[in-house]
Amino acid sequence: MPNTVYKVVEIVGTSPDSISKAIDNAIAKASSSLRHLGWFEVIETRGTIENGKVGQYQVSLKVGFTLE
Amino acid sequence: MPNTVYKVVEIVGTSPDSISKAIDNAIAKASSSLRHLGWFEVIETRGTIENGKVGQYQVSLKVGFTLE
Amino acid sequence: MPNTVYKVVEIVGTSPDSISKAIDNAIAKASSSLRHLGWFEVIETRGTIENGKVGQYQVSLKVGFTLE
Amino acid sequence: MPNTVYKVVEIVGTSPDSISKAIDNAIAKASSSLRHLGWFEVIETRGTIENGKVGQYQVSLKVGFTLE
Amino acid sequence: MPNTVYKVVEIVGTSPDSISKAIDNAIAKASSSLRHLGWFEVIETRGTIENGKVGQYQVSLKVGFTLE
Amino acid sequence: MPNTVYKVVEIVGTSPDSISKAIDNAIAKASSSLRHLGWFEVIETRGTIENGKVGQYQVSLKVGFTLE
Amino acid sequence: MPNTVYKVVEIVGTSPDSISKAIDNAIAKASSSLRHLGWFEVIETRGTIENGKVGQYQVSLKVGFTLE
Amino acid sequence: MPNTVYKVVEIVGTSPDSISKAIDNAIAKASSSLRHLGWFEVIETRGTIENGKVGQYQVSLKVGFTLE
Amino acid sequence: MPNTVYKVVEIVGTSPDSISKAIDNAIAKASSSLRHLGWFEVIETRGTIENGKVGQYQVSLKVGFTLE
Amino acid sequence: MPNTVYKVVEIVGTSPDSISKAIDNAIAKASSSLRHLGWFEVIETRGTIENGKVGQYQVSLKVGFTLE
Amino acid sequence: MPNTVYKVVEIVGTSPDSISKAIDNAIAKASSSLRHLGWFEVIETRGTIENGKVGQYQVSLKVGFTLE
Amino acid sequence: MPNTVYKVVEIVGTSPDSISKAIDNAIAKASSSLRHLGWFEVIETRGTIENGKVGQYQVSLKVGFTLE
Repeated sequence: MPNTVYKVVEIVGTSPDSISKAIDNAIAKASSSLRHLGWFEVIETRGTIENGKVGQYQVSLKVGFTLE
Repeated sequence: MPNTVYKVVEIVGTSPDSISKAIDNAIAKASSSLRHLGWFEVIETRGTIENGKVGQYQVSLKVGFTLE
Repeated sequence: MPNTVYKVVEIVGTSPDSISKAIDNAIAKASSSLRHLGWFEVIETRGTIENGKVGQYQVSLKVGFTLE
Repeated sequence: MPNTVYKVVEIVGTSPDSISKAIDNAIAKASSSLRHLGWFEVIETRGTIENGKVGQYQVSLKVGFTLE
Repeated sequence: MPNTVYKVVEIVGTSPDSISKAIDNAIAKASSSLRHLGWFEVIETRGTIENGKVGQYQVSLKVGFTLE
Repeated sequence: MPNTVYKVVEIVGTSPDSISKAIDNAIAKASSSLRHLGWFEVIETRGTIENGKVGQYQVSLKVGFTLE
Repeated sequence: MPNTVYKVVEIVGTSPDSISKAIDNAIAKASSSLRHLGWFEVIETRGTIENGKVGQYQVSLKVGFTLE
Repeated sequence: MPNTVYKVVEIVGTSPDSISKAIDNAIAKASSSLRHLGWFEVIETRGTIENGKVGQYQVSLKVGFTLE
Repeated sequence: MPNTVYKVVEIVGTSPDSISKAIDNAIAKASSSLRHLGWFEVIETRGTIENGKVGQYQVSLKVGFTLE
Repeated sequence: MPNTVYKVVEIVGTSPDSISKAIDNAIAKASSSLRHLGWFEVIETRGTIENGKVGQYQVSLKVGFTLE
Repeated sequence: MPNTVYKVVEIVGTSPDSISKAIDNAIAKASSSLRHLGWFEVIETRGTIENGKVGQYQVSLKVGFTLE
Repeated sequence: MPNTVYKVVEIVGTSPDSISKAIDNAIAKASSSLRHLGWFEVIETRGTIENGKVGQYQVSLKVGFTLE
């Protein structure tokens, strides 16, 4: 195993539907510009409230990927 | 934009079904007595265990709203 | 009410499907070897990324049970 | 079990005598205006010093109660 | 000194001008509805960005006051 | 001094009387099944409220002991 | 509202004059290379001391912007 | 009110008897060498275990005093 | 560069005027008794409230200096 | 990949020689009684001081292993 | 001294040999693509376990560099 | 065992060679002016970067000693 070095970035995914969808959206977006994504960690779950309901989930993630 | 002041309160929503339902219940309840709810932040996710399964999800939220 | 003493252990449940499933798997496994499980608390939500999607959710829980 | 929603407030009890008395005073006061108090959590223990002794204990609590 | 009990609430003051103004606005607003305010603690400093400049400062405070 | 290795476990002691009694109960219980207990650290102090008074103190401890 | 994804980066602004100037400098610099900056959060305030006075304020910010 | 400056030091009081006695011992000792002690804050409560009981309480305090 | 060792002390500066003045006061005071002050870090910003306004800002700093 | 569940335990390794040796000792000891150890995380590094030198390093680890 | 602005990124270095080597590898890798690296801070030390020994150290660093 | 009171101070050791050397330097320096040093705890590990390598390790310690 070579001495891989990883970079970790913070992104925030959003979704009106669920926490899971917000995570999926964040990872899909990150995958479109970063290669070798390896793991994520949820660091904050927030959201907006509209008309007595959740308007939008906002989930902050740390995402790690291999530096080539 | 006027210099709005917000208040933040902590509530705990519960549900036997899911984390999302517990959040929904907390926000619905808060909406019945507070106006101008604007955002929430999940600060703790706990629950009871019954018969080897989750009995009840208990999700603590900070909820912010405009002070009139 | 006797002066019950509880023990708290940390376990990590995994699931390719959802955060909820990962929690369920952790609690089901813990229930197979520990009796009198009473409550849990989510302390970390992580996961792997594969092909631009969540590969596996990994949810760390503290689980409390009565010491007999 | 209905999907109860709880509110959590922060109060600070004081006493010249002991940490316990400060907690008791905080909970007694909260009980005089809030119904259905269910639990508390100590979040900070401070105090004043007078003449080389503790002058007053100041104990911050989070107190949870059922929202009706 | 009687065994005073305090309550602590969280408010967020805003201002386009400065952190200090945001704190002032929060305390002025709180003073209009709460009596016996005694102290505050800054717990978060955030803000919006507009056209490459700070648009609005948002300062979260804990504010303590005597419970009568 | 050999290179001792310690294990640390988390337990929660309870008592209707005081924080100290809750700690004592936790340590007495741990001592009945674990040998070579060496130290403890209080990590959380909570409790229930009944009729405007503390019903039960719940004190979480980390307890360290020598691995033989 | 589309499911916007944001990125969050950490920058440190400096100024010999004030905390506010240090924040302004950080945001102005970030704006010169990043578009769609939306919000910031102060995470640390430090500085150097020279001749018994503040030499330079160093303010660490998290800055969020829309990923296009 | 002049612009008083305070210094804060960390001390650890011990007692075989109780948390309160450990705090008292720490403050008494600090008072013998420091003047103008004003306040304290408990930052950690630990102890030793001997023969299945608390051997010694060790309570870490921050203690603040006026700089003359 | 020799292997310099630094000491870090905690002080609290106060001012009725602003956070900056409170920091200045703390550093000026520390400079009157300590040599080779090098850096500071803000660790807490609190204050008193009087007549619906900030009465006094209280800013806690860690201050580092070279040990000769 | 089955839905593996992991357990996480806290151990403290010691060594008079180095932080690394303390980690090695903790993991070697844990390996003698636990199978399928997978990962560790350093959570605290402490030690004793004797005659102006480090007497013993004490490194606290969380260690994760597969529950069979 | 101009009002320099710094950026801070998070990277994870790995090494089968030691914590120091993992730090060295992270900084060497970062240096190959970023100029003006100025400082680092260790934020997490983890690793894998293989055959009762450390398989690979994984050290997370924040690394700061001047924005030109 | 008398009711010993300890004081805890924060120092930062530096070394171009290793984290261990930085700790050694801090403790050696502290020992030259303080008696009865008993224990230390690492609270932060930082450093400078020069020419793509660690220039200097900077390790912050809390050091405890008996107050006579």
